[in-house]
Amino acid sequence: MAVNLRIPGPTPCPEEVLEASSKPMINHRGPEFREMILRITDRLKSLFATKNDLFILTASGTGAMEAAIVNVLSPGDRVLAVSIGEFGDRFSAIARAYGADVVDIKFEPGTPADPDTIRKALNADPSIKAVLVTHNETSTGITNDVAAISKVVKGEFGKLFIVDAVSSIGSIPCPVDEWEMDVVTSGSQKGWMAPPGLAFVSMSETAWKAQAEAKMPRFYFDLAAAKRYLQRGQTPWTPAVSVFYALDASLEIITQEGMESVFTRHAVVAKKTREGVKSLGLKLLADERYASNTVTAVRVPEGVEAPKLISMMDKEHNIVLASGQGKLDGKIFRVGHLGYCTEADIQDVIDSLKVALPKLGFRG
Amino acid sequence: MAVNLRIPGPTPCPEEVLEASSKPMINHRGPEFREMILRITDRLKSLFATKNDLFILTASGTGAMEAAIVNVLSPGDRVLAVSIGEFGDRFSAIARAYGADVVDIKFEPGTPADPDTIRKALNADPSIKAVLVTHNETSTGITNDVAAISKVVKGEFGKLFIVDAVSSIGSIPCPVDEWEMDVVTSGSQKGWMAPPGLAFVSMSETAWKAQAEAKMPRFYFDLAAAKRYLQRGQTPWTPAVSVFYALDASLEIITQEGMESVFTRHAVVAKKTREGVKSLGLKLLADERYASNTVTAVRVPEGVEAPKLISMMDKEHNIVLASGQGKLDGKIFRVGHLGYCTEADIQDVIDSLKVALPKLGFRG
Repeated sequence: MAVNLRIPGPTPCPEEVLEASSKPMINHRGPEFREMILRITDRLKSLFATKNDLFILTASGTGAMEAAIVNVLSPGDRVLAVSIGEFGDRFSAIARAYGADVVDIKFEPGTPADPDTIRKALNADPSIKAVLVTHNETSTGITNDVAAISKVVKGEFGKLFIVDAVSSIGSIPCPVDEWEMDVVTSGSQKGWMAPPGLAFVSMSETAWKAQAEAKMPRFYFDLAAAKRYLQRGQTPWTPAVSVFYALDASLEIITQEGMESVFTRHAVVAKKTREGVKSLGLKLLADERYASNTVTAVRVPEGVEAPKLISMMDKEHNIVLASGQGKLDGKIFRVGHLGYCTEADIQDVIDSLKVALPKLGFRG
Repeated sequence: MAVNLRIPGPTPCPEEVLEASSKPMINHRGPEFREMILRITDRLKSLFATKNDLFILTASGTGAMEAAIVNVLSPGDRVLAVSIGEFGDRFSAIARAYGADVVDIKFEPGTPADPDTIRKALNADPSIKAVLVTHNETSTGITNDVAAISKVVKGEFGKLFIVDAVSSIGSIPCPVDEWEMDVVTSGSQKGWMAPPGLAFVSMSETAWKAQAEAKMPRFYFDLAAAKRYLQRGQTPWTPAVSVFYALDASLEIITQEGMESVFTRHAVVAKKTREGVKSLGLKLLADERYASNTVTAVRVPEGVEAPKLISMMDKEHNIVLASGQGKLDGKIFRVGHLGYCTEADIQDVIDSLKVALPKLGFRG
């Protein structure tokens, strides 16, 4: 029986995507690779809804987050880091590691970022140059209202707007140009239905202007090098060729399906997940108005031990759930429903929770 | 007809390695991944001939080179960068990008680094803290005598010794502990017979002491984080799972074969390559005493245009050769013979060159 991998990445891959991973190696400086990277880049740009440059890095999403920061900022730059969870904290930590002068705004786990609080912070400190925001916080299952945040960050203040869309774009609407996001990141193992190993970053014209002045050190993640090489259909350093094959296959599927249908599919399984866990008497961590369509965080009911629940779901039901991260460890479990996930996969989760929970002392 | 991919990485992968790439995704924080990363790490350590810590990064070899530098150095540190070609220059450029105070020693393309010149440089400048050396220079087909260089760098001066072994270790003897190398890098797509996407870096106790003081900024490539996570059988950031599968399969083959046999195999095909091209009247770029057992650089004979030769070998003979890099572009072509390469693959190259060269005006 196949495992029902319900973590927010790596996500399951369709059979044809896995098969594509096993194609023989080619010259990464030859014509076949050139055709492939140009096709993938064009499709990703279209799915990012952007005319901006877009680059594919051999790295995880965190690598793309580092690239997003080090290419447009200098040590000492004042940066507003808006965090609603672990990944927001990580974005802030990267900026700090490279010498940015970071102002943190943190919101309670399970709540979204409030645009008005961001407005006040920007009003209070005109020296802020850039704003870091997580679109979809994987650790809490919250999707920030980036459209509203953009109206403040870009519309009112014209700041450099750097967005971690690792677990949203490709699954949840995240139109890069419409929302005027200057730097946007994602990773292949999320809604893109490919294995991990490739990360994406888009750069607006404003971002390139910042890049020309930016003094944070960079080499592997230098997007100026990526731009030079992409002009000849290459990457500066040897790319993860088999993951390119997989991504090429998955983008063919996504392109055939159409982005609107992809978004609807995610909305449907997400709703089914939320309704399902609530029907069992469980509580969501997220303020439901902002609940994510890619991952659902569920409070572990009193009396139940999270590790035991996760272990029982794995061993007795073949379902792999994600635990809580950081301060939420032991307090929540998470159900990933991004990418290749059907309503039947979610029904399986709900049915199995219904069996497992009472054995662990839950009287919902 | 299968392509004869004769570039120095990505290298061809055995069928079982390619097949392993297409296994379904798993939780990178679960027990199966833990078993796999611990098994792979142990095997790599054994093949690196080291008791040092070893980490697997989702990146190319260049990423591992960056990790090797930023984890043990601080901005302003005086560093001796020994270069015999493009990859030596790259190592120097990475150190410079992160603020090291770099002293360059460059040797003529096709010649190895002279230990005596390194000794003089270290004598002349006691403030030098670390020495960067390329073990096998892929751009010129030269293998440096790292054992002799180590006697100077470690034996006489006790400097931090950082070695790019990306295209050597796993194919050519490169015993990490015996040669007292503090930081050593490699990449999955070289002699390891796996697809690109993973890079390796080993850290000695001396390297960890340097790491504790090192102030170059790092996040994605932070080896302290890698160490913390490896203790629980994980990576800090989502790893390229399908490349892990492939590497697991290729290390099984290599372990079965035994390292001595792997080294002999590389020596045999390398000798066959050198003898073969010389029998056609072609000249090697490398001083043959230091010619690499993983890649052979051949001078393009007068009157023959390199791009036409490379294109004809590809289109008419299904053989993919590598061109020259940097200043050697147009002056040499390169034959990769590392990893999964048989004598028949090399015979095919020689036989095809014999047909192609006269058509392009060569009268050898």
